[in-house]
Amino acid sequence: MHETRVRVGLLGCGNVGGALAELLLADGDRIAERTGMVLELRAVAVRSLSRPRAASIPPELLTTDAQAVAADPDLDVVVEVIGGIEPARTLILAALGSGKPVVTANKELLANCGTELFDAAAAAGRDLLFEAAVAGGIPLIRPLRESLAGERIHRVLGIVNGTTNYILSQMAAHGASYQEALAEAQSLGFAERDPTADVEGFDAAAKAAVIAHVAFGARVVAGDVDREGIGAIGADDIVSAHRLGFVIKPLAVIEEVDGAIGVRVHPAMVPAAHPLASVRDSFNAVFVEGEAVGELMFLGRGAGGAPTASAVLGDLLDAAHNLTVGGAGRTPALRAVPRRSIDDLVSAYYLTLEVADRPGVLHAVAGVLGDHSVSVRSMEQEGAAEGARLVFVTHPALERDMQACLQELHALDAVRRVGGLIRVVGA
Amino acid sequence: MHETRVRVGLLGCGNVGGALAELLLADGDRIAERTGMVLELRAVAVRSLSRPRAASIPPELLTTDAQAVAADPDLDVVVEVIGGIEPARTLILAALGSGKPVVTANKELLANCGTELFDAAAAAGRDLLFEAAVAGGIPLIRPLRESLAGERIHRVLGIVNGTTNYILSQMAAHGASYQEALAEAQSLGFAERDPTADVEGFDAAAKAAVIAHVAFGARVVAGDVDREGIGAIGADDIVSAHRLGFVIKPLAVIEEVDGAIGVRVHPAMVPAAHPLASVRDSFNAVFVEGEAVGELMFLGRGAGGAPTASAVLGDLLDAAHNLTVGGAGRTPALRAVPRRSIDDLVSAYYLTLEVADRPGVLHAVAGVLGDHSVSVRSMEQEGAAEGARLVFVTHPALERDMQACLQELHALDAVRRVGGLIRVVGA
Repeated sequence: MHETRVRVGLLGCGNVGGALAELLLADGDRIAERTGMVLELRAVAVRSLSRPRAASIPPELLTTDAQAVAADPDLDVVVEVIGGIEPARTLILAALGSGKPVVTANKELLANCGTELFDAAAAAGRDLLFEAAVAGGIPLIRPLRESLAGERIHRVLGIVNGTTNYILSQMAAHGASYQEALAEAQSLGFAERDPTADVEGFDAAAKAAVIAHVAFGARVVAGDVDREGIGAIGADDIVSAHRLGFVIKPLAVIEEVDGAIGVRVHPAMVPAAHPLASVRDSFNAVFVEGEAVGELMFLGRGAGGAPTASAVLGDLLDAAHNLTVGGAGRTPALRAVPRRSIDDLVSAYYLTLEVADRPGVLHAVAGVLGDHSVSVRSMEQEGAAEGARLVFVTHPALERDMQACLQELHALDAVRRVGGLIRVVGA
Repeated sequence: MHETRVRVGLLGCGNVGGALAELLLADGDRIAERTGMVLELRAVAVRSLSRPRAASIPPELLTTDAQAVAADPDLDVVVEVIGGIEPARTLILAALGSGKPVVTANKELLANCGTELFDAAAAAGRDLLFEAAVAGGIPLIRPLRESLAGERIHRVLGIVNGTTNYILSQMAAHGASYQEALAEAQSLGFAERDPTADVEGFDAAAKAAVIAHVAFGARVVAGDVDREGIGAIGADDIVSAHRLGFVIKPLAVIEEVDGAIGVRVHPAMVPAAHPLASVRDSFNAVFVEGEAVGELMFLGRGAGGAPTASAVLGDLLDAAHNLTVGGAGRTPALRAVPRRSIDDLVSAYYLTLEVADRPGVLHAVAGVLGDHSVSVRSMEQEGAAEGARLVFVTHPALERDMQACLQELHALDAVRRVGGLIRVVGA
């Protein structure tokens, strides 16, 4: 087989970059035999030459001058695994500007500056590939962009943050509180010391924006995404969910309704029989609903150095192939699609209220719901300290109406606390 | 966006061909807007012009001369959805010979004549794409060939036959017997009147051969696949499996062990917590174990006209793109890899025996197992009509040794019946 030599420059050498360098250095012969592509690692830009991660890399490849790597005319492809907006953005623009395709794992950058970067790639006639930016090692971007290029996709549901899935799985499996499960995730390295990006949904929102781009060709930025964290989920919600036949999952929902795109991130009640319900621990999964293809799910490891490096390697081979035959692969057209506000969402809801245990309370609550056209599918009352806990599941209702209910319920004398409001998805 | 016009010839117009024609005719504008590709359906070869499936297709497109469509120089791409070996083989060779890429859904043909067809495609410098041949609408072939091109894949486990998964799911859910579940599947159209190809594993074996080709670059034909049907699974096996923490699933197993490729199809005991265990009814799923990527699963509808047509459409867009930029996409190198016989398999086994209920029986049975180095992990005894049923789960043992045990157990006086021998996979 004819061999193609591809000179690779690597920007960043953390978890992912280190794993990729190791793959290229240790496994290059096998990759060449299988694919006909010789991937030569020629330069690795690191922040400091003395960092331990760089130890297994031949010292002559290391440099602290990332800008020189990005612009180097003797490289064929650049991989960016630094993360964050700058200097990654400037470096990627420099690489594309000098005619090199770029592979990146940087969801944050794509979700904030995607349009600028894709325009630069198109102007250069070069690939900007990003399989690793969403759901780590799971092949998702290429199937959506290529295998499903002609498919009319209705909705994508993703468990795209392993930390929050791990926390909610631990709460469900062991009855742990949110704080206990978070502390355990932190001690195991599944959650950062400052867990905000994960538990408040910022990480998932960036990935949701990238999915909206790939699945619907929609220009969506991270700031457009309706976002809710998992911090308000209590152990009692987990128990109630189980009794009602649901599992609480941290979801990204990207859907097209009447020509508008809704993108949101929040915990959701998923029916126990739904394929997403059995996606546990730190696994990621993305569930796709299409007109012709029906239901699909992609499951795997959403994070970690080696799985993410595997996705980068797949892109690297793709970029190398495209470079040899014509410059760039297919890029679906991006559209300015109207955004659908979460206020217009129609969903069933799970709602809990802690109330005084006295006659007339249910009547008052039901009055508020009825006034806003929210109809109740089921209601259970449980004893609680000096009162009762009411657990409602509604029929599909309008988010705007539901939020108006919450306002009025807060104001009711007999309502001591409005607990979780959790959307039902996939029923 | 620049538009590319692609003239498509369709060979066959059954479930899949009809659904594809409808997609191209009804949805062409949307596909063109999204992808920049105008897919013009120019000819549809049918067996008879009067068949109802062809009714929604403009009559001027219909022809009974498939050979003329395959060879037509005014077409750009040919889609083959006739199925079976001939005339599909001759038609595909003619289309490739006249310089046209071919998209096919024909697992049987690929699993028997794959080498000849891929050589013809390589000689022509044209694509032969076959996403729809395995697991219907699930994007599997492209992720394996491209996203995971550099990955060291260890094993692929597939539920690739919806009929047998449906039958075993019904047995598990409702305690139905094999015959009852089969009859129900037939009445719902999930099983053919002659179910041999599904229940004896021929369909899954062809798909397993195609997976071996794509995931390992191995030249494997359908006849190389070790194959066992599901007909021997009894309702009591389903009950025992559940009690032992397993679910019985119809699996295709393709693995590389010490440089040799094992390919087999048989029912298997899958741990209840394994992602494949919750793949129910007629869903298909393929589970991939790789060195860097870890565990992946692809789930979806493995059959049906619309999902399969969706996969064909994805290939059609890919072939059209490749044609415009360079002729053909990437094709991994095929290798002549040594085959690993199932005799060399090391697996845990589930085994049931119906025995006379008298002292010394277990001693005799344990003697046979011990003589062949088969060590028992658990044993349960249940009362049975005029005797007892022994349910064993072994520690990992050699298939060859296990088969020798079966021979000797058959010959034991006290053993009335040797029941299921089911391999444990995924534990």
